[in-house]
Formats: sequence, C-alpha cells, structure tokens
Amino acid sequence: MGEQITYSISEATEEATQGISISYFEKEAFDIVLNSNCTSEEKTRLFAELARFNTLYMVAKAGSGHLGSSFSSLDIISWLYLNVLKPEDRFFSSKGHDSPGLYAVQTALGILPFEKIHALRRLGGLPGHPDVGIPGAVTNTGSLGMGISKAKGFLYADDLLKVKKGRLFVLTGDGELQEGQLWESLVSAIRRKDNRLFVIVDHNKVQSDTFVANVSDLGDLVSKFSSFGWDASEGDGHNLGVIRDFIDEPGKSKPKILVANTIKGKGVSFMEHTSMGADVEYYKYHSGAPGKEDYSLARKELLESINLLGNEMQIVLPNPIEVSADPIRISTESEKMIPAYAEAILGLARSNSRIVALDADLVLDTGLIPFKNEFPNRFIECGIAEQDMVSQAGTMALGGLVPIVHSFACFLTSRASEQIYNNCSQGSKVIYVGSLAGLLPAGPGSSHQSVRDISAMSCMYDMKLIEPMNANQLAVALDWAVNKNQGSTYLRLTSVPYIPVSAGEADMDFTEGRGIVMNEGSQLTIITSGPIMSKQVMIVAAKFKDEMGINVKVIVTPWLNSLDADWYRLMLQDSSKIAIVENHYTENGFGSYIISHLSQAGVLAGRATRMIGLNEKPKCGQQDEILKYHKLDTESIFNSLVQFLDAN
Amino acid sequence: MGEQITYSISEATEEATQGISISYFEKEAFDIVLNSNCTSEEKTRLFAELARFNTLYMVAKAGSGHLGSSFSSLDIISWLYLNVLKPEDRFFSSKGHDSPGLYAVQTALGILPFEKIHALRRLGGLPGHPDVGIPGAVTNTGSLGMGISKAKGFLYADDLLKVKKGRLFVLTGDGELQEGQLWESLVSAIRRKDNRLFVIVDHNKVQSDTFVANVSDLGDLVSKFSSFGWDASEGDGHNLGVIRDFIDEPGKSKPKILVANTIKGKGVSFMEHTSMGADVEYYKYHSGAPGKEDYSLARKELLESINLLGNEMQIVLPNPIEVSADPIRISTESEKMIPAYAEAILGLARSNSRIVALDADLVLDTGLIPFKNEFPNRFIECGIAEQDMVSQAGTMALGGLVPIVHSFACFLTSRASEQIYNNCSQGSKVIYVGSLAGLLPAGPGSSHQSVRDISAMSCMYDMKLIEPMNANQLAVALDWAVNKNQGSTYLRLTSVPYIPVSAGEADMDFTEGRGIVMNEGSQLTIITSGPIMSKQVMIVAAKFKDEMGINVKVIVTPWLNSLDADWYRLMLQDSSKIAIVENHYTENGFGSYIISHLSQAGVLAGRATRMIGLNEKPKCGQQDEILKYHKLDTESIFNSLVQFLDAN
Repeated sequence: MGEQITYSISEATEEATQGISISYFEKEAFDIVLNSNCTSEEKTRLFAELARFNTLYMVAKAGSGHLGSSFSSLDIISWLYLNVLKPEDRFFSSKGHDSPGLYAVQTALGILPFEKIHALRRLGGLPGHPDVGIPGAVTNTGSLGMGISKAKGFLYADDLLKVKKGRLFVLTGDGELQEGQLWESLVSAIRRKDNRLFVIVDHNKVQSDTFVANVSDLGDLVSKFSSFGWDASEGDGHNLGVIRDFIDEPGKSKPKILVANTIKGKGVSFMEHTSMGADVEYYKYHSGAPGKEDYSLARKELLESINLLGNEMQIVLPNPIEVSADPIRISTESEKMIPAYAEAILGLARSNSRIVALDADLVLDTGLIPFKNEFPNRFIECGIAEQDMVSQAGTMALGGLVPIVHSFACFLTSRASEQIYNNCSQGSKVIYVGSLAGLLPAGPGSSHQSVRDISAMSCMYDMKLIEPMNANQLAVALDWAVNKNQGSTYLRLTSVPYIPVSAGEADMDFTEGRGIVMNEGSQLTIITSGPIMSKQVMIVAAKFKDEMGINVKVIVTPWLNSLDADWYRLMLQDSSKIAIVENHYTENGFGSYIISHLSQAGVLAGRATRMIGLNEKPKCGQQDEILKYHKLDTESIFNSLVQFLDAN
Repeated sequence: MGEQITYSISEATEEATQGISISYFEKEAFDIVLNSNCTSEEKTRLFAELARFNTLYMVAKAGSGHLGSSFSSLDIISWLYLNVLKPEDRFFSSKGHDSPGLYAVQTALGILPFEKIHALRRLGGLPGHPDVGIPGAVTNTGSLGMGISKAKGFLYADDLLKVKKGRLFVLTGDGELQEGQLWESLVSAIRRKDNRLFVIVDHNKVQSDTFVANVSDLGDLVSKFSSFGWDASEGDGHNLGVIRDFIDEPGKSKPKILVANTIKGKGVSFMEHTSMGADVEYYKYHSGAPGKEDYSLARKELLESINLLGNEMQIVLPNPIEVSADPIRISTESEKMIPAYAEAILGLARSNSRIVALDADLVLDTGLIPFKNEFPNRFIECGIAEQDMVSQAGTMALGGLVPIVHSFACFLTSRASEQIYNNCSQGSKVIYVGSLAGLLPAGPGSSHQSVRDISAMSCMYDMKLIEPMNANQLAVALDWAVNKNQGSTYLRLTSVPYIPVSAGEADMDFTEGRGIVMNEGSQLTIITSGPIMSKQVMIVAAKFKDEMGINVKVIVTPWLNSLDADWYRLMLQDSSKIAIVENHYTENGFGSYIISHLSQAGVLAGRATRMIGLNEKPKCGQQDEILKYHKLDTESIFNSLVQFLDAN
C-alpha cells in the first residue's frame, strides 16, 4: 500500500523535473490484436504486453501508481477479460493497487473510455484505487483483505434475488493474506458451497516494502487454504494454460483458489523481483513513477517484446503515440515530515532502550528504515496485520517497553480501532503514528485519504491526539509523547511535502492545550493545525491584510483534543468571530472538539464560529485540483471567511 | 459474548424475584484439598469441583455471568494454577468471559482477596471480564481474538528487557477462532520460534448462541493450526493427563497449541451441552444467572460430586456457607428495546423481500430469532467475524438487497470500522444496528460498554446516527432507515430494560434533525437522546419544578449527527443555557456535535453550554451504583445543572 509522494505543494513551486517524452498505444493497436486470427493464448500474450506498455505510460503521466503488481497480474487479468468473463460474471481485484494495469485492459476494451488513460489519479479521471463511481468497478478496493467477503455478498444477493447467476472472480495480493479478515472470510464460503467463486492469488512474493517472506512468511499456502476447506492449487501465473485449466476444470461444489506464482514487475527485466540481487532488501518498483532513465529503459524493453510477439504472430501494429509528460513540480522551499520523523525517533531511541518500533509493511513510507538499521532487535515488522500489531504493542507496554506503532493513518486508526481501545482500557501507554493523514495526497483515492481519523481516535481513554505543524514541532511532540505524557498519544502526520510555517523558537513550546499565535490580529481568529492547513491559513491571512487591510489572528495548535481554556480566553478576547480550518471531515472532528469545549469552558460567549474542512467523500486527483474541488484552496477559504465576516 | 440483561432500572422498581438461598465454600475448604496427601490429579479434580461450586455462587449472586464456559475450562485452569504456573509465568484467558471460573480459582489461592467472590460485577469488586486493575489479571480481555497477539507482546518485551523469562499460557475459546485477528496472530509466533508460548483452545463446541458448527464450522482445527506452522495436537480437555503431557512434552522450538475437547457446562448434567437433545438449537447456560430451580439442582449435583470425590480422597470438608441472594429487581413499568426491535424488523421484512439480516453470533441478544425463524433464507449467521460480516453486507447492498447488520455496538462499530467506511465510500446502503450501546449494563465491564460508538461512527460518508428514545420511536426509525434514508444508518440501541419516556403520537414524528419537546420551559434547555438519559433528564426536570419551581425545557432527539438549525433556533429562543446529557464519552460525541453545529448555524449566540456524560473509563458494576459513580444519576445531574444555572 506504499505511496511514494511526488505531489507538488501548491504555492511557490518550481519545475524540479523537466517533462520527459512518454508514449502509449492507441486502442486501435489492441483491436488489431483482438481481431487477428491468432490463438487465444497468443492474443492474450500480446494484449497483456500492450497493456503493460500503457500501464507504464499511465503511471509515468500520473507521477505515481503501482507498476510492480500491475505487471505481475496483467497476464491473469488479460486472460480473464479476453477469454473468461461473460456479461453476467463479475471480476475485481481485492488488492486494488494493481488498478493501472486493470485500467489499461479496460480502456483497451472500451469498458472505460480510452482517453481516461491520460487521467490516472486525476480529478474526473481514474482513481488510484478502484471506485464504483467508474465503469467496470463493481466494488471499492484499496483497503486490503476484503475481497472474498465482498464476493460472498454479491453471490448471496444474486441467489436471493435470482437476478443474475454469474461467476465471481477475485484477484488478491499475497501481502494482503496477512490481513485477518481474509481468513475470516474463507470459512462461510465453504459452508455455502459457493462454487461460482474463483480466487486467484497474485503470489508475486513482494509486498509494499520487501519480500513477503521477510515480512511474515506465508508458509505453504495451498496447505493453508486446503485446511480451510477450499479447493486449492498452485501454478505459474504467467502460464496462461494454468489460468485456463484452473477455471475450466470441473468444480467440486466448493470455491476454488489458485496460488498463482508470478513475478513482480514481470515484463521489464530490471523491475522483475527475480532479477534483484540476493543482497537487495527493498523492491524499488512497488509504487511511485519511474525515473527518466528507468522509464526509457522499460519502454524500450516492452516495445521490443511487443514487436517480437507481433512479428511471431504476423501482426503489424501502429507506432505508439508520443507525448510530453507533465513536469513534476517540487518546491525548493518544501519540507518533508517523514524524514524528520525518522530522525526524531532515532534520536529518542538512542537514549531510551525501551523504545521499540512496530510497522505494518510500510517501513519506507513511515520513515523507519534508519531505525530498523540501527536497532534491528527493537524493530518489529508485523506485516499487513494491524490488529495483531496493535495488540502486541499493548502487552509490550505492560511488559515495560515504550512501543511506537506505525502505519498509514487511514488503516491504523480504523483497522485496529478496537485493539487501540482495548490497549487504552488496560493502561498500555502506546504511541500511535499515523502517516498519510488528511486529504492529501489525493492520488491514491478515498481508501487512503485519512479524513476521519480524529473522530476514530476520539473518546479513547487517556489518549492525546497531536498534529504537528512542522518538523521541529514533530520532534518536540514525539519527545513529549515518549517522555512526558503518561498515557497514549496519536501523532497525525502529513506525508506530502509542504512549505513549512514556523514561529522559530516558539515551535518548541509545547504546553498542553495551547497553540502558537502565528499572526496577530483581532476581529477574526482562525484556529488550525498541521502543515497543509497552517500554510493555507497563513496565505489567507496575508490576503486579508493585502486586499482588505484586516489583521486576522492565526492560531496553529498541535492539540486536537485538549484545550487550555484560560489561554484561549486570553487569545480570543478581541475576536468576535472564530473559524476552524481542518484537514478532516467537519462532522465531528477537530472543529467540533474545539468549538464545543470552548463553549463548555465559557470562552465562546457570543462569538460566531465557522468550521471549514471536508464535507463530502474525498475526491481523487492532484493536490491543487483537489484542494480547490473541496474548497480548501486559499481562494475558497478566503471567500468563505469574507462571507463569514460580513454576516451578522 | 452474549449478555442476558437482568439489571434493574433505577426508579419505581419492585421486587420481582425474591432472593434465594445460595452457598459457597470458604477458602479453608480449598486449603484442605491443597494440603492433603493426594495425587496432583486428585487434588486438581476436587479443587476444580469446589471452584465450580463457587462459580455458581458468584454468578447467582451477581445476577449475570458466564457459567457454561467457566465450567468447561475449570479443569484446565485448575491444573495450570495448581501444577504448572511458576511466578515468572503468565496465564490469561483470551475469551475473558470465563472469568467467574478464573476468579473462583484465584480467590481460593489467595491471588485475589477471598471476599471478592461476593462482589462479581460490582463496583470495586470483580469485573465481568478481566481488567488489569485487579490482582492476577495480566491483560484486559473480553473483546475476542486478541490472546495470541498479546502473548507475543509479552514475550517480546521479556526478551528485550531480559527481566523475566517465563512461559506464556493462553486459553482461547473456540467461537473466537472465527475472529480474523487470531489467524493474523499465528504467523509471526512461528517466525520468532516462541517455544515459551502454550495455547489451549477450550473447544467446548458452543459459542454465545448455539453450536459453533451451526454458526461457522471450524473444520479440522489441528490441520489448520499445523498448516500455520504450529505444533498442534488434540485431546480431552477434562483429562488432566492430556493437559500435563501437552505442557511437559519437549517442545520443537515452536509454539504449541492444544485443541482441548471440552464440555460446555461440564459438571452439571443438565448444563452440559452433550446432554442437550438433538433438536435443541440454543444453549441456555452461556450467560445469565441460573433461575431458582436451576440453581438448586446445580448446587445439589456439584455438592454430591464434591462429597463423592472427598470421600474417595478421604478428605473432610467444611460445609458450605449459606447466604441469601440479592433480590433481582425489575420494574413492572419497564420496556425493552430488543423485543421491540425484533418485531419491527419482522414487520418491515414481511413487506420488503430485499431485507436481509446479518448477525455476528448474537442472535439472542440482538433480537433476531423471530426473523431467523420466519425468513431462514434471509438470515445470515456470520459468526464472530464482524469484518467479514460488514464487507459482505456492503456488496449485498450493491447487489440489490437491504442488509441490516447486527452486533453489540462496542464490537460492530470498532471491529469493523474500516469495513463500514469502505461500504460508505462505495455507496452501499447498509443499516448497522448496535445493541448494548451506552454505559449500561455495566456488569460486563469496559470491553462491552459502548461509550465511544458515536465518535467511531462519525465522519463516515453519508451515514445517519440515530438513537431512539423508546420502542415506538425505534419502529419509526427502522422504517425511516429502510424506506426513506438514501444512505446508511446506524441505530444505537439500549439493551437494559428502561422506564420509557414518551410523547405519545409525537414519538412517531420523525423529521430529520428535530427532537421532541418533552417538557416545556425556558431559561435552561436540556438536550438528550436514548431511553436511559431521557428518563434521567425527565426526573431531573421534575426535580427542578418541585424543588426550585423552575420549568426546564427538555428536548429528546434521536438524531445524533443531524440538526435542523431553524427548528432548534425556535426551540431555544427562550433559553440562555443549554445542557447536553449523553450516554457516551463527552470528548467528541453527541454533545460536541450538537454544540458545534448549533454554533456554526448561529443558533448558540451568547448561550452558555454544558456537556454532561462520561469523562473516564467506564466502571463495572450494577446500574445504580455505576450511574452514581459517573455522576449520571439524577441527583448528580441535577446538582451539576443547578451549579450551571447559578454560574454567570
């Protein structure tokens, strides 16, 4: 589920990378293959290779996306679409991050409008993980381990309504087999004798970070599935005959599962995991766009393979279309929180041998590689098994350690919600670090956008929620969580680069419940938190000054669920209007907490308030377009506040 | 995890059941056995039988508790405590609801003060599920499937800190093997070669509702565990030699697991599941206190068995001590929501064939038996696998059904948090029904007290949270959720009997965002929801009238996350103070939502507010003592509001 972040920050950027020339095959090329007189297997092989070529294009154009598992699954997906799926059947990928490959197939077949290949991870385009809002997507995926449960729901509905009697094909990853839900889901499928259900495990041996076997060895999968009562078998996932036989062979009145041994990055030699040296620990092509050189080499290899297959099959294909890639804009002034976090945890761990770090297969994205390298015995890779990770952390704390638990905010706070509460109930002091928090990056889509984690982590017993505004404050916050807070802490971290807002030395002032006044003013006070919204609000404040001559007070606070009422009373005394700007749903998040507790403390008095944040399902797209869509760009925030000031 | 509710409602009760005579053995009796010259096996057998006798006493005295699985596990637990556990070892039960049996052993051995046997499920006594706040409890259990994860955390901490090098013994249920976390947790234990870890499955074949095989067949457990790499074996869990050999036989550098075949209710003939006729669907002695007749029969049988063993072993035991059981007080005016729910869903289902009901092993407690009997094809028993259940419901909705999902609020909203959000993100209209919501019953302890479900269910996309105030309103609410609401609904249901508050016909008015004015007044308005707090608030309002001559306005609203601002503006126009009383943590729940959104809508103006609800970890105990402890009894609420009115 890793996401290498290459998004731009909205203001003051410059072109860090010049656009390169990238290319794709038109739909016509796919049609020629499909209309040829070749065998099904030949057609599928060439079709899959063309789809790889377009997948490479889509990811390069988008600036992010998952190449490795798109490539490993494309032979399977192509076979299904070209030779198996009937109108009454359903297919979906449980892992979801292989969507660029899936889209390449679907655009080639006209299931999706072809021109969408230019709009991967863009607003109105194709989301980073499938969403039922687009044609061909039967269910939302992106949060792992749900696939078989979902398949069963469809089959049950079909049975009861007698409206459709198709088969159900589910592709899963192998890393996601670490999720407990998957094992939950195996049982009742047997009981219901769902022999319309076909599951294929894209067993490409590599999960987000590294080899599955290094993370949490899956053992003998066929034996496991068999012990759960499934009709399980194993075979080469790039051998189309294996896929064909798996589906065509008569069933046994029970669901079938194929462990398809595949190669991550299949089709591009240097991306194939099997080509990696024995000493290579991390697989480089799980997520993120290829660099200029990698792109050119990969393109060349795929083109050679396509030409070779075309020649063998006596098919003449049109040339690919060349276009210039959008430049990736990265600000020279930007700061990144994850590397700062990596440094902060390392510093604390050096002086406190009780600190241990737990990770759920996101060691790259959560900044734990330096920690892991320096303290291998104090690093615990739990795999994609957040519940297991969090419960382990709870007893590690009871056993005398200071466990720090890491994952993306969206998964950590919801997958392990009950386990976190259970830890709190037994007084286990644990530090939960959720990265990728907030609306951005918006490219991966709603499954990865963590805009309800504040609610999810509220009402835990003895838990402080903290969102630092910059790298300096992050270091202080982590130190506070480890050394000062008696209870548990949730650190809400931004993963996109940002232009930092800072009050210099004052960043380091970390008095519970107090923010930092970043801009002096009266009349209107804006309270916010976190790097993205702090920057937005500071720009808005400057705009108020420039355009209207109004000084707006800006308070940036890291404290999402604590509030020093006396401090706020003093700070707010000159303001008749208070706005909260948050990188979260407004329904019951930071704004609700602050306003209701200011009111409770008698600080609100007659002051008018406004909550600005997310009010609907987050859209997928690039940073600027998404902030604008959700009216969280500086212009929209400014306009909303002007209207707020004008109101009675 | 089922809980039969026998708690009294605080006001206007009468004695529905006269106290019966119940009895227990003093610690001295256990000491005599331990100090005898019998063999380890003889001692353990008699000790376990005495513990069963005291377990029966504790549950009868408490008025609730889990007899069946205490009895099935007592031979195992007694063997461990008498012959295995060394000071450096740790033991805990992952299922947790066998705690009465565990406490009977621990009080007999002096690990817990003996007099605590009189205080099961009482404030300051022994919680319904283990809590680290009491001696001998190494971790909190009660939410299922966490045991092996927790064991691994302890072992890891021991290794790293080199402070303790004991073994870890975990007892699990068999029903809880349906939880995905359990399967997550098996994997890394192998990788770490944790051969200090011993897991015993109390395979008593019966989970909360009925036979495990009826719910979700576990299949060949030894084969499953073996396929996950564990050293797995099977044996008779009442044969002490089996337990001894399992622990003593040399290990294989990996964790061991024993599938211990046991009898639920072991020791009392009519409670033994094996004595039930083939036509009996539901096991009667999972939870809840025995009735007068059952108690007497069980007591007699256990005493005979004790005397027989004592004679064989030539041990003379003192007579048990007789005491009178506390009367169970149930109000004649009380109403129950679950039977009303059972009727409501049945009525709707009769006219809408798309309605299906999903359950997670709580068919009795969630009121689904009539539905299941009438619509067996539309009832889906998912077992204790909330994640799988919720994801299935999501695609059932996409497939054209109206799925209604049931469990206890504490587990449904947290175990399946991510799955619920995923459903919302794909526009799956699902109705989530969480029973046992709120602080009461407080007997089961914090694992079962759902006081953060409003936060947990906030910020889902397109989800309405509704808490009906009585049975009439519940029926309207369910109808609204099925027939009017386009999106998803969460119904927050009270499971304890309550004295209903009603506005007659007006209960049926169900305009979104509006409450019902239950009492007219000015100056102070109290907003609340749900049956328990509505009743409390109405009593408080009467008190204001009687004692101070003040008319307090009372608004009871079922809408926890929607608010008709114009309606509230009108209703609140004469009030300068607004209090919210909620059956939930106040941090970011109902009160925060209402106050922040009233403020946002400009309705709050200069009005002072107060949030009254839970502010700390909920305590275990009987209803009245717990309401009082948390200052949610009518006296405390009244005093708090008098002080609020007096303040500036």
